[in-house]
Amino acid sequence: MIKFGKLSAIGLSLVVLSGVATAQMKPEDAIATRQAGYKFMAWNMGRIKMNVEGQYNKDEVTQAANVIQAIANSSMGKLYLPGTDKGKGFHETGVKPELFSDKEGVGKVAKEFNVAANEMARVAATGDAAAVKEQFSKLGKSCKGCHEKFRKEEH
Amino acid sequence: MIKFGKLSAIGLSLVVLSGVATAQMKPEDAIATRQAGYKFMAWNMGRIKMNVEGQYNKDEVTQAANVIQAIANSSMGKLYLPGTDKGKGFHETGVKPELFSDKEGVGKVAKEFNVAANEMARVAATGDAAAVKEQFSKLGKSCKGCHEKFRKEEH
Repeated sequence: MIKFGKLSAIGLSLVVLSGVATAQMKPEDAIATRQAGYKFMAWNMGRIKMNVEGQYNKDEVTQAANVIQAIANSSMGKLYLPGTDKGKGFHETGVKPELFSDKEGVGKVAKEFNVAANEMARVAATGDAAAVKEQFSKLGKSCKGCHEKFRKEEH
Repeated sequence: MIKFGKLSAIGLSLVVLSGVATAQMKPEDAIATRQAGYKFMAWNMGRIKMNVEGQYNKDEVTQAANVIQAIANSSMGKLYLPGTDKGKGFHETGVKPELFSDKEGVGKVAKEFNVAANEMARVAATGDAAAVKEQFSKLGKSCKGCHEKFRKEEH
């Protein structure tokens, strides 16, 4: 039904479409996919930041917050497959080995991020710029909570 | 408020957080960000496909459809900045020059994708596996509609 071209960086991602469950993804594809999720969220964090610091546009903030919410709710933790503690997706993974052993710690930061992202989308929909600014700060802290514990310093 | 490490591939994306509007992004960052969006959508397309072809899990399909919807609604067309018709983000862009000149054609495929992605999320929420399968086919066709016109064959 869907035709693919030669294998390439995009082609790799489309291999998934041929019917590979997340648990069976190649390590480099799982790493690239989670890097993609963070990269796209970072763009949308930046957009919210621009709005709360400059001219406020409710539509842009809502779009951005909805992206972050949907990615946060996507169970992307499944992309931290065994064997993906090292290796290269789009670039070398910055994950610390602790992410694969400290289940309780991971669960805590993941939940904090999840709650903050859902609240961000809820607040964005109200159009209340001051509340958005406050929630954006909380959301940023929840990102940082994971980065500090589970991401290598150089990333 | 948010502390960053050295500039790296992830660091690049975080430059946005320092307050760069999308229109002022560096070309390589805009290209990498749109590639990230497509990569993350591809994972989620694959997840829906697995569900409609195998054992159906409403939660997973809903999560995946919500991601695709949010990214489709994110105005990521803004990432096709002047000067990003060539160049490397995470990898060489596969965009055809026509995307930057054929505004009507781009608008048509973008709208088709947008409508299909929003309908996908709506249908996913119902949990009707047969309807999801049908809509997933339509969504795939809307992706293909853009790929065929505006993406180079080798990608």
